[in-house]
Amino acid sequence: MANTNPARGMRDFLPADIRKRNYVIGIIKQVYESYGFEPLETPSVENLETLTGKYGEEGNQLIFKILKRGEKLDINDKELADTALRYDLTVPFSRVVANYKNDLPKYFKRYQIQPVWRADRPAKGRYREFYQCDVDAIGSTSMIVEAELISAVCEVLKRLGFDDFVVRINNRELLREMLNASGIAENLQTDALVAIDKLDKVGAEGVLKEFNERGIATESGNRIMDLFATLERSANPETLAELEKFIGNKTESLQKLTQILSLANNPNIKIDASLARGLSYYTGAIMEINVSDLVGSLAGGGRYDGLIGMFGKDQIPACGFSIGLERIIVVMTERGMFPPELQTNSADVFITIWNNESIAESLKLAHELRQNGLRVTVYPEVDKLAKQFKYASAINVPYVCVVGENELAEDKVTVKNLANGEQETVERRKIAEYLANKISS
Amino acid sequence: MANTNPARGMRDFLPADIRKRNYVIGIIKQVYESYGFEPLETPSVENLETLTGKYGEEGNQLIFKILKRGEKLDINDKELADTALRYDLTVPFSRVVANYKNDLPKYFKRYQIQPVWRADRPAKGRYREFYQCDVDAIGSTSMIVEAELISAVCEVLKRLGFDDFVVRINNRELLREMLNASGIAENLQTDALVAIDKLDKVGAEGVLKEFNERGIATESGNRIMDLFATLERSANPETLAELEKFIGNKTESLQKLTQILSLANNPNIKIDASLARGLSYYTGAIMEINVSDLVGSLAGGGRYDGLIGMFGKDQIPACGFSIGLERIIVVMTERGMFPPELQTNSADVFITIWNNESIAESLKLAHELRQNGLRVTVYPEVDKLAKQFKYASAINVPYVCVVGENELAEDKVTVKNLANGEQETVERRKIAEYLANKISS
Repeated sequence: MANTNPARGMRDFLPADIRKRNYVIGIIKQVYESYGFEPLETPSVENLETLTGKYGEEGNQLIFKILKRGEKLDINDKELADTALRYDLTVPFSRVVANYKNDLPKYFKRYQIQPVWRADRPAKGRYREFYQCDVDAIGSTSMIVEAELISAVCEVLKRLGFDDFVVRINNRELLREMLNASGIAENLQTDALVAIDKLDKVGAEGVLKEFNERGIATESGNRIMDLFATLERSANPETLAELEKFIGNKTESLQKLTQILSLANNPNIKIDASLARGLSYYTGAIMEINVSDLVGSLAGGGRYDGLIGMFGKDQIPACGFSIGLERIIVVMTERGMFPPELQTNSADVFITIWNNESIAESLKLAHELRQNGLRVTVYPEVDKLAKQFKYASAINVPYVCVVGENELAEDKVTVKNLANGEQETVERRKIAEYLANKISS
Repeated sequence: MANTNPARGMRDFLPADIRKRNYVIGIIKQVYESYGFEPLETPSVENLETLTGKYGEEGNQLIFKILKRGEKLDINDKELADTALRYDLTVPFSRVVANYKNDLPKYFKRYQIQPVWRADRPAKGRYREFYQCDVDAIGSTSMIVEAELISAVCEVLKRLGFDDFVVRINNRELLREMLNASGIAENLQTDALVAIDKLDKVGAEGVLKEFNERGIATESGNRIMDLFATLERSANPETLAELEKFIGNKTESLQKLTQILSLANNPNIKIDASLARGLSYYTGAIMEINVSDLVGSLAGGGRYDGLIGMFGKDQIPACGFSIGLERIIVVMTERGMFPPELQTNSADVFITIWNNESIAESLKLAHELRQNGLRVTVYPEVDKLAKQFKYASAINVPYVCVVGENELAEDKVTVKNLANGEQETVERRKIAEYLANKISS
């Protein structure tokens, strides 16, 4: 027999799953639009060259490539694929900005909610296809952009019912300055960031071990890890003061961080000097949102002033934030945060079929009720009435209509409320109004 | 410089495109739900074995395969890919039904709106990634299913504003009976159907030529093509009578066709005895919807009682209909069918930035207006006011707010209506109500 499971790392979504997903996506869209972001979508498939070299050492290896077709195939690996599946939404968006520059406003703000694919080893809660919900603003280097992005994403989380999240913030430039002050040579700093990015997973010991493997002097490594340890529990003003002392200067990146804190004016924001973010395209502020009961982040983002310039001749500054749909749903499900009124049935009204001759009447009734805004399902067969009622109850439809011989003769419809068993016979011409009132009440 | 175009056969969708797409998808969802169909989604990537052998000779070749990752690669073509991109929504749905049989109701009705990928040669209006909007009902062989599916799809088209479409209907069994009556041997009938499927594109001459190439006797070929020519302009009752005469018997498939016509009770339906549909999995009724100004169909579907049984041990009857989103949008755009009120701007209110010290006040105002349901965008920089107004006008936002020194001192906000140039200074505490009234009126 055929294997009917979804492919490795992939998932099927049954109606109850989709209703949850659509609920969350609906709120995300609504909030993003209230901030003036406009919808945009890019194709699932990109030219391979668009994606390679944008995501750092790990990312390049996790891109799903698409096999070239028949006649073009060559044994040489390089020639086997020239397209690949979207790995994130930021790189395709940057390509789009470079391509349609003249059609877009200078300070274009877009949101994009689409799946991405990564050839990660599947694990609990980690899939090879997952949705990202991105907001990005291009054209300005002002910290108003960072403040508005943080505000938009926090508003999404609040409307979904989260009140305990932490927005960790840092700056890539500032990290470089910390690494310089620690005495880590410039040519080792990208390696150092890759190691620091794993701090949450492997702990300080693990990072120091990787520093060592990557040839970073123990003394320098200890210096920066000691700084992180010192700052771990300190409040933002204290952290800013300590960082200024450590670097020896109130640098532009420190000033920017200070300005974001002031403009965003949000008690959930905490400077985390060790936050590195894996993707290689970030150039300034970096952000990540966490809750205590989830390993990994609910959202992440940052400034990438150099990425669009990799596609077009103009260097256009940009900053973005991305919400991970699946992680939001995992936490909301575990915490029971979905509203109890989230629709759980397929229809408001169930119409039975009395006999072969009455089918047309049942379908006509269904049509009329639908025109009146009701969701109506029709039993698809001529069958025992008891069986039809049992089925209506099993699929959780609240009202069942019978158009039988008596009803047809008297121009009436019998309606049963399955919740309380009450049954009424209603005039045919009043049935739509009767049911619409029942359903809306 | 990098190539910034989308990959071959792929498309980027800017905000105006997405708004059109979301408008159409919104109506499709609403109608499908009013018929009791429930949402379901499947992954973009399927095991290759799930897809191969389901779509007929052409389909197999148009499947996009995904390259296996590094260590597993082998020169042998067969081993280069074991997964592929979704080619339609029907085959993955059939796999899902087989896999989750115990979790689904017996007469499960689902809708699914997702992209599919086909390695077709790109041409005007033909893309390699496109959306299908499917409704399918499983579990019943009753013609109530066909009637309801046709009704649902017609209702979608009507609500979108179409009034001139034709629902062509035929039956695969009936086609076999016609081929038998024409004297075409059983082992040549699949070939004959492939040729007949091209009738719209290549004309009767072309089909007869292909019959010849495929070894079908000229006399038999002429006989069936003469039948099609005779029936081309005849009304449904006449067609049914002619077919009965041609086959020599009122077969079950003829009876089913008669019953669908009677139950659907829809003047747009026309029997087309030459309709074949390309996909190989159809077993009974087949349908296609056309308008005169589009080559190809707006929607297509049919009964596939054998497909689910290819995945599970139970043979479950099923029937479905699929709307092609892109084609709907092409015709609606050409005919100017989109409502003029389709939202075209990114925000209701534009908030200017007076100076560095007032940024926080502008952001606070934006937050407050958003909490009151308004879509608000903030200019991201400290800049000349005239430049900010010019930008607001360029991106088509109707109301601009200024929170300058005077306004701050007097606890007021200046509001300008860009359409008529009117300007008012409103008390700060009344501004949300003031703008909400303006926008909703």
